[in-house]
Amino acid sequence: PDSIRLAVVAGDGIGTEVVEQGLRVLDAALAGTDVTVQTTEFDLGARRWHATGETLSDADLASIREHDAILLGAIGDPSVPSGVLERGLLLKLRFSLDHYVNLRPSKLYQGVRSPLADPGEIDFVVVREGTEGPYTGNGGALRVGTPHEVATEVSVNTAFGIERVVRNAFERAQARPRKHLTLVHKHNVLVHAGHLWRRTVEAVNAEFPDVTTDYLHVDAATIFLTTKPSRFDVIVTDNLFGDIITDQAAAIIGGIGLAASANINPDREADGSFVAPSMFEPVHGSAPDIAGQGKADPTATVASVALLLDHLGFGEQSRAVEAAVAADLAERGDRVRSTAEVGGDLAARVAG
Amino acid sequence: PDSIRLAVVAGDGIGTEVVEQGLRVLDAALAGTDVTVQTTEFDLGARRWHATGETLSDADLASIREHDAILLGAIGDPSVPSGVLERGLLLKLRFSLDHYVNLRPSKLYQGVRSPLADPGEIDFVVVREGTEGPYTGNGGALRVGTPHEVATEVSVNTAFGIERVVRNAFERAQARPRKHLTLVHKHNVLVHAGHLWRRTVEAVNAEFPDVTTDYLHVDAATIFLTTKPSRFDVIVTDNLFGDIITDQAAAIIGGIGLAASANINPDREADGSFVAPSMFEPVHGSAPDIAGQGKADPTATVASVALLLDHLGFGEQSRAVEAAVAADLAERGDRVRSTAEVGGDLAARVAG
Ligand SMILES: CC(C)[C@H](C(=O)O)[C@@H](O)C(=O)O
Ligand SMILES: CC(C)[C@H](C(=O)O)[C@@H](O)C(=O)O
Repeated sequence: PDSIRLAVVAGDGIGTEVVEQGLRVLDAALAGTDVTVQTTEFDLGARRWHATGETLSDADLASIREHDAILLGAIGDPSVPSGVLERGLLLKLRFSLDHYVNLRPSKLYQGVRSPLADPGEIDFVVVREGTEGPYTGNGGALRVGTPHEVATEVSVNTAFGIERVVRNAFERAQARPRKHLTLVHKHNVLVHAGHLWRRTVEAVNAEFPDVTTDYLHVDAATIFLTTKPSRFDVIVTDNLFGDIITDQAAAIIGGIGLAASANINPDREADGSFVAPSMFEPVHGSAPDIAGQGKADPTATVASVALLLDHLGFGEQSRAVEAAVAADLAERGDRVRSTAEVGGDLAARVAG
Repeated sequence: PDSIRLAVVAGDGIGTEVVEQGLRVLDAALAGTDVTVQTTEFDLGARRWHATGETLSDADLASIREHDAILLGAIGDPSVPSGVLERGLLLKLRFSLDHYVNLRPSKLYQGVRSPLADPGEIDFVVVREGTEGPYTGNGGALRVGTPHEVATEVSVNTAFGIERVVRNAFERAQARPRKHLTLVHKHNVLVHAGHLWRRTVEAVNAEFPDVTTDYLHVDAATIFLTTKPSRFDVIVTDNLFGDIITDQAAAIIGGIGLAASANINPDREADGSFVAPSMFEPVHGSAPDIAGQGKADPTATVASVALLLDHLGFGEQSRAVEAAVAADLAERGDRVRSTAEVGGDLAARVAG
C-alpha cells in the first residue's frame, strides 16, 4: 500500500505517552519507503466513558474497520467500574474484529535482567486464542446480593475457533528453527474443551509433519516458565490460560514494560486485503500511578509496532524496529530516560 | 482421640513410596503420646481401574467416611485416559467430602535454592476453593468429532460456597503476624463470578476488621509471584486459579517435591467431631518416570502430615514435623538420599 490507514486508540493513563513514541518509531521505520502513515485518532477509554457513557459506539467501530491496523496504548482507570471498559471496549474490539490470534512473543534480550536466577535462552511465542473460551461473556448471575446467589461463567469452545488458531500456531512453529509446538490446557479437569483442543492439535499436526508437539497442563506450564523457559518455542492455548501465562512470561523476560502483543485476524478477502484490521498493543496497562510524568517505558509499544509492520508485510522494517529495540536494551544499563528520550533513541536507531 | 483412624490412599507411581515415609514420620510424631494410628489401606488409582474399571465405588467412599483423615500419595498414570482418575477419584473425594478449603502453604526454607534470583522471604498460604468454579464438571460437548463441535465448561460459583472459604481464609489471615489477605480472581472479565467473590470478601472483612485486604487479577498475581512473592501473606482464590498459582508457588519455593497440601472440610458436628475426613496430599503427581526406584523425595508428603496433625488438633506434633522438615532442608545440601533415607532422617529428627 502507498499509505497505511492507522486507527490510533491511545486510551488512558500512560497510553497516550507510549503511543506517541510508537508512532514516531513507525514513521522512522517507513521513512526510507514511499509509504506514508495516515492516522485517525479515536477518543476511547475512561475519559470518553465519563463524558458520554459510551465505550465503543457502532459508528466508531464502523470507522475503525476502514483502517488497515489499530495501534492501542492502554485502556482502563480505577474510576471506571471493573469490566466496563474491558468488556465494552477492549474485548469488544477483539471480538468484533475477530482477532483470533492473540500473539505474544517472549524474548529475553541481551542486557535485560530476568528475575530468574538461571533463565537460559528465552525465546518463545504464545499464540493465545482471542475470541472464545471463558472470554465470551456467556454466563450470568441469579439472586444477586442474596445468600443464594449463583454466578456462572461459561467457557465456549468450538472446533471452528480452535482449528483456525491451532493452524496459525503450527504455521508459526514451522517457520521457526526449532519447529516445536506446545499445547497448554487443563484437559484432565476441563475434559470437554480440553479434549477438543487436544484432538484438534493432533489432527492439524498431520498438515505439519515436521513440527513436533507436546502437551502441558496449565499448572505445569507455570512451573516450566519458572524452571526451564528455554523449553518453549511456540505455545498455543486458550484465551484465559493465555492471559495468565503471558503475564508470567512477561515477568520472566524483565517485565510487562517490555512485552508486546498483537491481536491478529489473519483472514483475507479475495483481493488479498485483510478482512479486518488487526490491533497492536503493549501487554501492560494504563498505569495511572505514573501517568503524565513522562516516565513510562514505550519499549513494549515500539515492539508492538514491529509486529504491526510484520503483519502488514513490511518485514524488513519490522526487523529494523526489533533490532533497534534489541540494541537499545543491550546498551541501556541503569540509565534513566524519559518516555520521549527512549522513543527518540529508538527512532534514531531505526533511522539508521 | 485415643486413636486416629487414617484412610491411606497411596495411589500410583511414587505415591506408595512417599506415603510409607509419611506414615513413618506420623508414627514418630505421635510416639510420645498415647495416641495410636489405625490405618486402612484403600487400593485406588490406576491399578484398581485397570483391574475392575472402578475409580471410587460407593462402598469405598462410605468406608473412607468412617475415618478421621485421609493420607493420599499420588493418583494417575499415562495408561489411564486423561480425566478418568482425576474426576472419578481425586475430585470425587474432594467434592463428596466437601473439601472446600484447599490449603497450600508456600515457604522458602533456609537451605533451599529458589529459581528466583532475588526471592526475598517467601511465606504465604493459598486458600484455594475446592468444591466449585470450573471444577464442577458442568458443561458438555455437542457434535463431537465434527467440524461443528461445541464444547462448554461451566464455572459454577455460589454465595454459600464462596463465603465459607473466604471466612476460613480471613481466620487464617487473622492468626498470622501480617494479617493480610489477597483476593486473586479476574473480575474484569469473569464479571459475574468475580464480582461475587469481591463483594463476599468485602462483606466478610467486616467480621475481621484487623485484617487488611487487597485484590489482584490472576494474571498480575503470576507477575508478583515472580518479582515480589514476599508481598503475599494469605491468598484466597477460585478453584482453577488456585490450581494454577499454587504450582507456580511450588516452583518458586524450590519445586513441587516440597509442596504440601490439605483438602479440608472444617465443619463440625454438634459433638465437636468433623463432619467428614479431610485429605492430605503432596502437590506433586505420581511421577511414573521415577517410580519404584526409591528416588522420590517424601518431603512434601511429610509436610502434608504436619498439616494433618494440625487439623486433628495435634499442634505441638505438627510443629515438630515442620521443624524436622525445616532442619533437614537446612542441612541437606547436595546430598543424594533415597526416599527411605529422607523419611528415616525426618522420623529421627521428630523422635528427638
Ligand atoms: C484487560 C484485560 C481484559 C486483558 C485480558 O484479560 O485479555 C489483559 O489482561 C490482556 O492480557 O490483554
Ligand atoms: C490432578 C488434578 C485434577 C489436580 C487439580 O487440578 O486440582 C492437581 O493439579 C492439583 O492441583 O491437586
